[in-house]
Amino acid sequence: MDVSGYLHAKGAATEAALEACFVPWTQAPSPLIEAMRHSLFAGGKRLRPALALGACEIICGDMTPALPAACAIEMIHTYSLIHDDLPAMDDDDLRRGKPTCHKVYGEATAILAGDALLTMAFDVAASTGRADVVAEIARAAGVEGMVGGQQFDLEAEGKTVALEDLRRIHRAKTGALICVALRCGAMLAHGTQVQLERLTRFGDHLGLAFQIADDLLDVGGDEEALGKPVGSDARNAKSTYPALVGLDRARALAEEAATAAVEALEDFGEEAGPFRALARFVVSRDR
Amino acid sequence: MDVSGYLHAKGAATEAALEACFVPWTQAPSPLIEAMRHSLFAGGKRLRPALALGACEIICGDMTPALPAACAIEMIHTYSLIHDDLPAMDDDDLRRGKPTCHKVYGEATAILAGDALLTMAFDVAASTGRADVVAEIARAAGVEGMVGGQQFDLEAEGKTVALEDLRRIHRAKTGALICVALRCGAMLAHGTQVQLERLTRFGDHLGLAFQIADDLLDVGGDEEALGKPVGSDARNAKSTYPALVGLDRARALAEEAATAAVEALEDFGEEAGPFRALARFVVSRDR
Repeated sequence: MDVSGYLHAKGAATEAALEACFVPWTQAPSPLIEAMRHSLFAGGKRLRPALALGACEIICGDMTPALPAACAIEMIHTYSLIHDDLPAMDDDDLRRGKPTCHKVYGEATAILAGDALLTMAFDVAASTGRADVVAEIARAAGVEGMVGGQQFDLEAEGKTVALEDLRRIHRAKTGALICVALRCGAMLAHGTQVQLERLTRFGDHLGLAFQIADDLLDVGGDEEALGKPVGSDARNAKSTYPALVGLDRARALAEEAATAAVEALEDFGEEAGPFRALARFVVSRDR
Repeated sequence: MDVSGYLHAKGAATEAALEACFVPWTQAPSPLIEAMRHSLFAGGKRLRPALALGACEIICGDMTPALPAACAIEMIHTYSLIHDDLPAMDDDDLRRGKPTCHKVYGEATAILAGDALLTMAFDVAASTGRADVVAEIARAAGVEGMVGGQQFDLEAEGKTVALEDLRRIHRAKTGALICVALRCGAMLAHGTQVQLERLTRFGDHLGLAFQIADDLLDVGGDEEALGKPVGSDARNAKSTYPALVGLDRARALAEEAATAAVEALEDFGEEAGPFRALARFVVSRDR
């Protein structure tokens, strides 16, 4: 299974759909649009869109119904990065090898660009005509999901947290958006409740595997491949899996999570092959 | 017509509905919830909710269907104030007589509290089951609405803008949310396209009257009644109606806008009485 090719194809469809989202806004202030585009089209992996499109395709054989949800979730992911990089938050100058949004457009416009992406996400999500999809996305991005996780993360800075707390932070901060991508893809394919639950379980393990791999890359990754300096977690005194349990145990936990993700898919057939390969891929990636 | 009593009744209904929005979130980080509540329950006028509830009531005789939209729009209004007050934006210490969100909870949590209110707004809006209502709200709050207006506002700082540009800024920054409150109230009452158009016209004039009155209060208002220092527009070199056309002409323009707002309601009957009185009220208020 060619995971890169799979991600590339899903990424290209996402890219085109994201571009289309910007077509209607001819009256918007151009610096705001530029700042949004700077971060949205910065060479992200498009993992969340791929999960939404893939889940939809696994269930109904067509990824098209999931495109609006894929775009909405990627906009939300991007807004969270813009706000996370602000001086008052992580104060990062580089992201994916490019200057961060506030470095190029100033803090005020970067704050507004994040706000605008979050807002546009819900416009795009609503274009599905499905208020239940909008609600799922809002919940995953909200106080018990991504934003809540960012707040937990702030509070944990400089402290050594227990492993179960770290798991809770990650489940909210990155896991919720990964799970909702899968769920919305399935919902837009008119999947059954059982299919939704299995994909949610897949997403939960995949999110954990992804997060541990991310932590490991920050310790031992290649700056050029990553497009950002490594070691920032240690400098910011952030709790990570390698810091809490050591490198070897962290690697083992990532592998275990990938295996559990694959197992969650056992009732799906051959059509879920790309997702099984993807679970292995996220723990072996170099960026 | 007792406008204060009308606003008070609509405000009380809004307050109770907003409180109910916070009940489900038992797993959210408490500092984030506190920061959101600090700004959301800070004694705002609840003008936008009153417009949503009032429009719904005018059309179907019941304001209840509009409560989720009223809450969503007030959350969006509040998030915009939190982000507007940040050091990178207007750098304000006081809002409605209370320290601003970042003064109490720090900048990072204030940014997240704004993000969380914006996100929760769409969860609440989606609870109507109406994707069209969600889309209306997202559009009014987005790049061609409120956020776009804030960006135009940033760009206009320190410059003297033409009157028509100022009108465009206000139409986006404050007018869009006022109009969408009315529109969503009408939509949730299953109003006709003609009713929606009339209420939109009412909102357009009302928004202008409200904004000019706001500018006038910043020049000559009472700090204690306002709960914030006056003269901040002049200090921040913001273009305002009084600065552009003088106090007397600004007062006349506000009155004209209030009259035009009342005229937009002429096809409505007695049930629109409170809205007619409200149009006069916004240009005579002291806070």
